[in-house]
Amino acid sequence: MADLNPYWIVGFTDGEGCFHVGINPNSDMSVGFQVLPEFTLVQHRRDEQLLHKIKAYFGFGVVRRNHQDRLAYRVRALDHLHDGIIPFFTRYQLQSKKHLDFLKFRDVILLMKRGKHLEEDGLRAIRRIAAAMNTGSVKIESSPLETGGDD
Amino acid sequence: MADLNPYWIVGFTDGEGCFHVGINPNSDMSVGFQVLPEFTLVQHRRDEQLLHKIKAYFGFGVVRRNHQDRLAYRVRALDHLHDGIIPFFTRYQLQSKKHLDFLKFRDVILLMKRGKHLEEDGLRAIRRIAAAMNTGSVKIESSPLETGGDD
Repeated sequence: MADLNPYWIVGFTDGEGCFHVGINPNSDMSVGFQVLPEFTLVQHRRDEQLLHKIKAYFGFGVVRRNHQDRLAYRVRALDHLHDGIIPFFTRYQLQSKKHLDFLKFRDVILLMKRGKHLEEDGLRAIRRIAAAMNTGSVKIESSPLETGGDD
Repeated sequence: MADLNPYWIVGFTDGEGCFHVGINPNSDMSVGFQVLPEFTLVQHRRDEQLLHKIKAYFGFGVVRRNHQDRLAYRVRALDHLHDGIIPFFTRYQLQSKKHLDFLKFRDVILLMKRGKHLEEDGLRAIRRIAAAMNTGSVKIESSPLETGGDD
């Protein structure tokens, strides 16, 4: 099987991808909350090799069990999101309404890159953006079941 | 929004597409059954325009309500499947295990093009192929809710 085409990845993401920003209580943080952005692609385990091909294409991220017989390719590291995922979907534009989620996700990543999630005002701004995301979609793919930042 | 890229369509189909062969009792047919192959792409209605773009790309098929707030792009006409869908996914190969369903679907279409679905032996062969399709996937997208061959 040949290498993946970037347009294939965009089409697959329009179908199966999710941009999610979790905001969880965390007493270790001075603002009391941790912001956890993640990009996921979920697939039945029979196509596990496909998720590994996507991981190889990007050069980062992890493939993990999602729930039952489904696996997820997942990117959580801020640098991988900022330097890899954001430029990719800026260059190769999503064709579905998921593009609007991506734009909000990008706003959050850019705020985080400037450390704004560590300040009260910035956290409030991120909350507002996150609340407006994934509103039109079933959120089965958007709830992280594991919390380890292992990518 | 620019025209769709064929690799995008393949990626989207790996995520959201379904190749299905229905075999329904029909007393009008001399063999007693009607073979109904269909290719569908299902999407939330907020992305209805995207399904219309796919229809425009192929130049055939219909966009219809699937169930609740989901719509489907659907191709059922044998000529459109044989002359359009089959060559497309032969040239631009699916990357997931859905490719195996496509190969079986193609076998059925080629048999139908030779009229084999109108003979007892051919119908038996098609039944065997159809029974081996979609075995690994949730079949929510594969049950036609309407039976009109309206494309």
